[in-house]
Amino acid sequence: MIHLHYWPTPNGHKVTLFLEEAALPYTLHPVNIREGDQFKPAFLKIAPNNRMPAIEDDETGLTLFESGAILLHLAEKTGRFLATDPAGRAETLQWLFWQMAGLGPMMGQAGHFRNYAPEPIPYALERYTNETLRLLKVMDKRLADRAFLAGDDYSIADMASYPWAMLGTRMLPEGTAMPNLARWVDSIAARPATARAYALAQRPEYQTGPITEDQKKALFHQNASTVR
Amino acid sequence: MIHLHYWPTPNGHKVTLFLEEAALPYTLHPVNIREGDQFKPAFLKIAPNNRMPAIEDDETGLTLFESGAILLHLAEKTGRFLATDPAGRAETLQWLFWQMAGLGPMMGQAGHFRNYAPEPIPYALERYTNETLRLLKVMDKRLADRAFLAGDDYSIADMASYPWAMLGTRMLPEGTAMPNLARWVDSIAARPATARAYALAQRPEYQTGPITEDQKKALFHQNASTVR
Ligand SMILES: N[C@@H](CCC(=O)N[C@@H](CS)C(=O)NCC(=O)O)C(=O)O
Ligand SMILES: N[C@@H](CCC(=O)N[C@@H](CS)C(=O)NCC(=O)O)C(=O)O
Repeated sequence: MIHLHYWPTPNGHKVTLFLEEAALPYTLHPVNIREGDQFKPAFLKIAPNNRMPAIEDDETGLTLFESGAILLHLAEKTGRFLATDPAGRAETLQWLFWQMAGLGPMMGQAGHFRNYAPEPIPYALERYTNETLRLLKVMDKRLADRAFLAGDDYSIADMASYPWAMLGTRMLPEGTAMPNLARWVDSIAARPATARAYALAQRPEYQTGPITEDQKKALFHQNASTVR
Repeated sequence: MIHLHYWPTPNGHKVTLFLEEAALPYTLHPVNIREGDQFKPAFLKIAPNNRMPAIEDDETGLTLFESGAILLHLAEKTGRFLATDPAGRAETLQWLFWQMAGLGPMMGQAGHFRNYAPEPIPYALERYTNETLRLLKVMDKRLADRAFLAGDDYSIADMASYPWAMLGTRMLPEGTAMPNLARWVDSIAARPATARAYALAQRPEYQTGPITEDQKKALFHQNASTVR
């Protein structure tokens, strides 16, 4: 059994996309990051960076945090969604790291300045919007002559990128066409496992109201002194 | 032979740290990111995200971009600096991804707002300084009861983190002690391979004057239309 410590955000969806595709048995453990569940001692033992997702894998006794490390572990465990030939494996891993180091953090910053910063800061909004659009364009070019990021087959690089890129395509300015990216988003959205993964977010335990000022403070005013 | 496309920045140092430790034969190919070398067609063929480092590995015929993917490839190729037991491997990979997704991008943002943004933006400066200090504290706690991030042995997780964390310890406010982190920095700085890796930055081809306004524009005003 896989225990997934989860909240329905893009980084959480990456892991449910894998688990649903591979039809692995798993149990969800909600980590309500609005309510501070990420600071509970039992969670921090697995995820000392106080961020979800994280897993415990009963079969191997391993625990893991960082969505990229989790996807790689699950791929190696099942032999699925990661090419086994050296070239295909290298292609997959470089795009997995690209998502983890680039698309994820930079879209995260764009989201912060759009949705949560106390007032609009034009320089930061422009910086992270530009970088997001640049990264989406790099994907669009990459997908011009192949179905998925690593080649012909759906892989963990796509699972890592989909939850972010799917939101990214909604930010494209009027008149900016990224047809290859749009085709890729549609093809992943159409997979039954994708629908099942995203349906989890509808469960009652994941419904929240608008974020409160106290919750914003706890999420966005972390520093060395909040490390537990 | 490994061909490393390189410029002496923290992400570049990660790879030379590995190559020097493992004493692998390699050739450096400068990518002067101030002069736009990252947009040359031959480089973009290997690194479509126009960022260094990237490698070509003659022996396997593979090319790779993203420093994390490069470190993982080199570790698997040589059987070094990555534990082979499942638990040790998982520990190493989760901290490697943590550096790639957290410490690297967030310190990168702190550096941008400190050194390159056209004017000081207090909210952004505080946000990225706080997050940097939080991440360094997470490392300091992690290193309280083990020599290296993944356990007893120096690994690719440490090589990825050292060039950033070493700079980070210089940002610590007066009175903020992170003794475990300091001990870890000192122990890596004292390795002969570390000295050899950092000495490469002194070569004449890597000397530049202060960054010009035109160079800043080319580096910091990228967007979808600058993707080649
Ligand atoms: N690089 C990490 C990022 C994880 C992350 O940022 N998780 C957020 C939600 S999407 C979180 O748990 N935040 C809680 C907090 O910051 O306290 C990964 O990919 O797993
Ligand atoms: N996640 C990437 C980041 C690489 C990166 O940001 N490289 C910078 C220099 S440290 C670069 O090549 N910048 C050139 C540009 O932005 O045009 C990695 O770790 O390899």
